[in-house]
Amino acid sequence: MTKRAIPIELYYWPGIQGRGEFVRLLLEDAGAAYVDVARERENGLLAMMHLLEGEESGALPFAPPFVKVGKTIVSQTANVLAFLAPRFGLVPDDEALRAEASQIQLTLADFVDEVHDTHHPIAGSLYYEDQKGAAKRRARDFVGERMPKYLGWLEKVLARNKRSSGQWLVGADCTYVDLSAFQIVEGLRYAFPNALARLEPQIARVVALHDRVAERPRIVAYLKSQRRQPFNQMGIFRHYPELDAPSPRVRRTRR
Amino acid sequence: MTKRAIPIELYYWPGIQGRGEFVRLLLEDAGAAYVDVARERENGLLAMMHLLEGEESGALPFAPPFVKVGKTIVSQTANVLAFLAPRFGLVPDDEALRAEASQIQLTLADFVDEVHDTHHPIAGSLYYEDQKGAAKRRARDFVGERMPKYLGWLEKVLARNKRSSGQWLVGADCTYVDLSAFQIVEGLRYAFPNALARLEPQIARVVALHDRVAERPRIVAYLKSQRRQPFNQMGIFRHYPELDAPSPRVRRTRR
Repeated sequence: MTKRAIPIELYYWPGIQGRGEFVRLLLEDAGAAYVDVARERENGLLAMMHLLEGEESGALPFAPPFVKVGKTIVSQTANVLAFLAPRFGLVPDDEALRAEASQIQLTLADFVDEVHDTHHPIAGSLYYEDQKGAAKRRARDFVGERMPKYLGWLEKVLARNKRSSGQWLVGADCTYVDLSAFQIVEGLRYAFPNALARLEPQIARVVALHDRVAERPRIVAYLKSQRRQPFNQMGIFRHYPELDAPSPRVRRTRR
Repeated sequence: MTKRAIPIELYYWPGIQGRGEFVRLLLEDAGAAYVDVARERENGLLAMMHLLEGEESGALPFAPPFVKVGKTIVSQTANVLAFLAPRFGLVPDDEALRAEASQIQLTLADFVDEVHDTHHPIAGSLYYEDQKGAAKRRARDFVGERMPKYLGWLEKVLARNKRSSGQWLVGADCTYVDLSAFQIVEGLRYAFPNALARLEPQIARVVALHDRVAERPRIVAYLKSQRRQPFNQMGIFRHYPELDAPSPRVRRTRR
């Protein structure tokens, strides 16, 4: 018998996809042995809090998600992905292409931060209802300016990638960055369905990338499983109709 | 004669320290040959805009700062630093320590984003004056909750680093992360002098780290030079007294 590898431990808040989902998608696509500690282990959430409070040695995470691989703790989503991806062939070996993957992932992370701030522009510790006015103003800018800018940039990055004829974001094959781009399209479809529907004709490559990832066998299996949690109003991508663009029907009536 | 190395090209908005300053501090401390293109070259700003518009091949940056090293373009501050640091011995070789440096740098980047959003909670495209109410609310949360949380975490990271007896954040020696932590203390002293003065007694290690970096000979020379631009009301760290904590004198009067 071969020695069984110690599973990677993923630590993230239970009950939401959140930033943890970017790590889950990598681990699932890789077919990696992992434990979603706070969801799957008894007292897993407590174990996570202990690590956040610095009760064990090693790198101190500021916030989840983080992973434990052997004795090494790694936090910050983009850093976790860059650390894991080479172990599973989900990023090229070339230094410049790795730096490019990282620059795209960090830009996606900024995009995700801005999605979060549409419903929490003032403070993460306050309820949405207590910052609704500011949220509406911030979301108007997000839907009108920022979301088209980020998605348009992604579209350009795909168009420029000759190595994969525009099929993947970096290098010739699928990388962790493509999995994250898939999740962003999923999240925007949930949170800003009208705004995204309006933009989709201009970002055909990004939509095709999403569909390509959705067809990967392990991603298909994951999305059908109980391990994939549904989007909800506690995560980063939240559907507040008042923050989305108006529906096309409403717009037509207004003309 | 030895062949002269091609200087690293740094691209960033002229007139502010901004996120470009984290890269400048690394290059300066390393004694690297570099050109601050938009400030030092004729039509440098135009060259930067061309690269942002994708008029040259290679990785497409979403925003400055980015660097060009030979033919490789690298963007996203933390990614730029992680790319440059090994070339100058400003990060350990060990994979786990590099991942730790990156997780700290990315947490500092989040901190910097939150500093920015104190004066621009609604939209980067609007004037501060047009989002002053929301800015006051966001800054109250920043000063009361977020700033102590980030700085307290940094203090803990230093206290836990036995490899340097708490002198540096990662490993035994000064790394790029320490240079960035220095800049954050500098920025907070400018933008939130009262709030930082109140916290300083609780973050003695962070303050000592700042002073240690400020004594490094190349940093001393840089800070005295014309290359170091002053803080101002266009950058990330801005001093709006109404966003800072009240001054100790005012607080005393109120008691």
